[in-house]
This record gives sequence, C-alpha cells and structure tokens, in this order.
Amino acid sequence: MLSEFDLIARHFAPIAGEAGLGLLDDAALLRPPVGHDLVITTDALAADVHFFADDPPATIGHKALAVNLSDLAAKGADPLGFVLALMLPAQKSGMRLDDDWLAAFAGGLGALAKSAACPLIGGDTVSTGGPLGLSITAFGSVPAGRMVRRSGAKPGDRLFVTGTIGDAAIGLQLRLAEKQDKALQLSADHGHFLHERYLRPRPRNAIAAILRGHAHAAMDISDGFAGDLAKMLRLANVGADVLLDNIPHSVAARAAFRHDPEFRETALTGGDDYEVLAAVPEAKAKAFATACLKAGLAVTQVGTVLSEQAPIRFLEADGKPR
Amino acid sequence: MLSEFDLIARHFAPIAGEAGLGLLDDAALLRPPVGHDLVITTDALAADVHFFADDPPATIGHKALAVNLSDLAAKGADPLGFVLALMLPAQKSGMRLDDDWLAAFAGGLGALAKSAACPLIGGDTVSTGGPLGLSITAFGSVPAGRMVRRSGAKPGDRLFVTGTIGDAAIGLQLRLAEKQDKALQLSADHGHFLHERYLRPRPRNAIAAILRGHAHAAMDISDGFAGDLAKMLRLANVGADVLLDNIPHSVAARAAFRHDPEFRETALTGGDDYEVLAAVPEAKAKAFATACLKAGLAVTQVGTVLSEQAPIRFLEADGKPR
Repeated sequence: MLSEFDLIARHFAPIAGEAGLGLLDDAALLRPPVGHDLVITTDALAADVHFFADDPPATIGHKALAVNLSDLAAKGADPLGFVLALMLPAQKSGMRLDDDWLAAFAGGLGALAKSAACPLIGGDTVSTGGPLGLSITAFGSVPAGRMVRRSGAKPGDRLFVTGTIGDAAIGLQLRLAEKQDKALQLSADHGHFLHERYLRPRPRNAIAAILRGHAHAAMDISDGFAGDLAKMLRLANVGADVLLDNIPHSVAARAAFRHDPEFRETALTGGDDYEVLAAVPEAKAKAFATACLKAGLAVTQVGTVLSEQAPIRFLEADGKPR
Repeated sequence: MLSEFDLIARHFAPIAGEAGLGLLDDAALLRPPVGHDLVITTDALAADVHFFADDPPATIGHKALAVNLSDLAAKGADPLGFVLALMLPAQKSGMRLDDDWLAAFAGGLGALAKSAACPLIGGDTVSTGGPLGLSITAFGSVPAGRMVRRSGAKPGDRLFVTGTIGDAAIGLQLRLAEKQDKALQLSADHGHFLHERYLRPRPRNAIAAILRGHAHAAMDISDGFAGDLAKMLRLANVGADVLLDNIPHSVAARAAFRHDPEFRETALTGGDDYEVLAAVPEAKAKAFATACLKAGLAVTQVGTVLSEQAPIRFLEADGKPR
C-alpha cells in the first residue's frame, strides 16, 4: 500500500484545482464570487450499501461526485469544488484497493470533476477496518439569497422532473437478479442502459441557473420519486395531483414494465434517479420548459401543487387515484 | 433504530446553526464575511483506528470536531460552521449505537460546537456494514489572502509550539496497556490527565488571529511532533535545530518518562497532540509570545529554522544531535 503522501501525490494531486494548494496544506482555500452565497452539500457512500464493492472503480468515483453535483444543481448552485474523505479498507479486509484500483477511481472522479468544472480542493484519506467508505462535501455558488429551497412549493405550482424516472432502481434490481442467476428477459441494450443509469448518474447542472430564475422549490430525486415528492410537499404543507401517465420513463424502463408490472412501483419508489424535481409557478411554467429545452435538458410536467392540507394523489389516466 | 429523519430531528437539529436550515434542505448555505476567504478542512475518523469503539460517545463527538477546529486554528481561520457525514454500523455489527449513544455523541459534539461558535450546518447519515465512520468538513474565514500556509517557513524563523507535546500519544499507550492488563505505575491523576488528553483534544482557536499577524507558517501537530515538523520544513526546503530540553512536556508526561524512558520517543513521534506548530520571524517572536500569553495560550520556543538544505537536528542539552 502507498503512503498517504504518495497516494495523494500520485492519484489525487493531478485532479486537484488551484484552491487545493497541491493538496499539500492542512486546508483548502475558497473565495466565493463577490455577492454570492456558498451552497454546501454532503453525501456519504458505503460499499455494499450505496454501491457494490466490485463495481468498476471509475464508476464509484464518478457516482460519489455525481450525487453531490446533483444536490448543487437542484439548489440552483454552480459548482466551485469539492473535498473527499476516503476511508480505505485495511489490507486484511479482502477488498483489493491496489494502485490500479485507485488510479481508475481517481480517473472516474477526475473526469466528472473536469467536465463539471468542480475541482478537488482537499480532503483526507484514512484507514478503516470496514468496507470502503466515501464522503464528499461539494461547494457551489448562488447570487446572494437566491438558493432554491426544498420548502417553497405553492398551490398552483406545476411540478416538473428532468430526464426519466426509475431507470436506476430497475437497473439495481437487474444487477441483484444477475447476482442470483435470475437474469430477466430484457434485451442486452435495455439491460445495459438501465444498469448504466444506476452506475453512472448524470447530474443536471445545466438546470441550476434556470431554477434560480423560475422555480419556487426544487430538490434532487435520490430516495425515490414518490417519497422525495412527499418530502417537498410536506415541508410546504401542501398536496398535489400527479398524473401517472405523464411521469417520464425510458424505453428500457417501459420494456421492463411489460416484463414485470411490479417494476412500475419500483420506478416510482426506488432511489438513485438523481434527476431534479421542481415546483414552478404557473405563470413561469412555459418559460421554464422552453429554457430547459434550449439548454438541452429534457423536462416533463408531471402534476400540480394543490392547496394546503390536500393529499398527494397519483392519478391514473381515467382520473382515479391509484 | 430511528429513521434518518427522526435521528436528525432529535439529535442533530438542536445543535444546528441558522445556516443549517433546520437540516431540512438538501444543502447548507454559508455567506463568508465580505472581504474574507473561506478555509476548508476535512478530517475523517474510523472506529478502532482513530478512537476506540467503546470510548464514551461524548468524547468521540468532541474529538471529531476538535481535530478539524485544530486545523482551522493553525491556518489562522476563525470557525464558521461544519458538516458531518456519519456512517452508522448496521444493527448486525454488534456496536450498539442506540438512542442513548447518539444523544451522548451529539451532546459532546454540540458542546464543543457551541463553545467554539462553530455550528453544525448540514451533513449526511448513512448505514455501513463496517465500524462507525465519521467525516467532518469544517469552515473558517480569514481576511482575504491571509491564510497561514504550511509552507512559508524561512531561515531564521523561531519555531513555537502551543501547550505540551506527547501527552495524547502516552495516553493512548496507557489505554492499550490497560486493555492488556499491563497497567503502568503512574499515579491515577497523571494517568487520567494523559488519557483525557488523548480522548478530548483542546483545539487552540484563540491563536488564529495571532498567527495571522505574526507567523510565516503554521500547522497543527496531529501525526507526531517530529514528523509534522519535518513536513513543514521540507515544504519550504529548509532545516532546523530543535532543542530537546525546550520541548514542553506536562508533569504527567515527565512522570511517564521516569517510569519508562521510551516514552520520550513516544512523545515526540506519537500523534494526536492537536497543538499548533508555528514558524515566526525573529523580529516578531517576542510580540508573538506576548500576544499568546495575553490570550491565555501557553507557547514555547523550541528551535530555529536554518538555511536551505540544512538537516533537521534534535539537540541534547550539551549541543549534540540525538
């Protein structure tokens, strides 16, 4: 095993930004743009809870940063940088985190950091007797007072989601079924797409500025669409009608639904979407959708926020609640 | 086990600052004072590596924050707040992290956060199949461009340390000896003092402003005095003479030296001091010491920085290198 110093110099200094001071000091330095607030988010991941220990290391590095970038996007914040705490299993643990593993991990992490303009600026590497653990704290900036809250939804707001919902949760089920030699009868392309959506979430950072200009509230969907929607609405003490037919699902997910109708439930309640849920006032809904389209972001209107104390209803095509 | 939501509401929301938004949003918000840089430090701790799983939970909470506050102090930064990533062992792991444990942990963490004016502003709680893991990222502010680097030592600078050196490393040895029923013949008071120094480091945050006004370089001593001094000097490509007799040791540590001379070595090379090492230009050395005295901080001059390429020498009273 490399020393902490060599490990940092070899694998992490190359992906560090200027503020990381070459990762040689005890601390990083960040100067948020004048007139801006700093937005801070933390997401921790443990092997065999949030990813499989035998996942490709590049995807583990990618995912650890992606889930944090997704939070910044949903808050309307533009990425500035991140710090990484890495808990590496001691040799005896059986998980082989050798030099090749670290190089691939840092490669996946660094590629996303570069494409998102969110450099590594500091962190810590420690040894643990347990499985691999990762914690990333990411920093973004918003013009002062403009962070998009989770709590601001108002009656009449239109509810939008980016991308497609449920792919990653189905991808995880496929992965688990594979491990039990119970592979499902999906085409290889569909299976690959769904699994990739689980392994390599794509944070929607292009939506940040659009949310600031249009949304009353937003959050990223990480714990399942239905549950995360409920969290947002409860904070504002409002209800909503959601049209089930309007919820965007990928072609691959729809193929999975045909194979096993239970996957419809998985898609709405499973986690790991890393799409953005936004509540946009009716008057700005069209402009919001147009701005997203221009930015190359797929968004779909899925429902409407109702008055205080109303329930959250998921409506079938015939208008009946499921 | 409480849900993540209940766990946060019961134990962590009460110690959160305003910027934590009640810990109900996806992100925290920080507005560093105008004209200031943000200093960011991350330290991770794993059970049975950085602390014992059966340590009092209040001291685990205290230590996790203290080691980060110590980094801020050494950088000349005044604390603003911190985020916590908590990796809680799943039930099966045998480590009982019940409601009482969490209450005591949050109590220890919150007490130090309050006394240091460094509130909890966000974080994440996840489950792990391994031992307890903690990662704290702490934020501080310095007037723009005034962060005290690790790398700025210059020939002629006087080397100072705060407090006393080696107590925690000896305290750890005592604790390990106890576990093996090989208790050393130290008085109960001395044993307790040394063990407390290991369990409950006291970050020297009062030194931050003084360092900004006087020091060329500073770092906190966490991996052992000798090794950390070498890190600072190598970065500046300079050497130093350190007078062994001048290194401050507590009465309890000196009693341990008498019991077993090996502890002299432990004191200089062991970790967990969380004192501050500073390189101060000769012209400011007296003013630095006076300012520390006024702030109630014990500091001791232990050596002098030598020219480039010179070695680091630890000198006995007779002037001979050890």
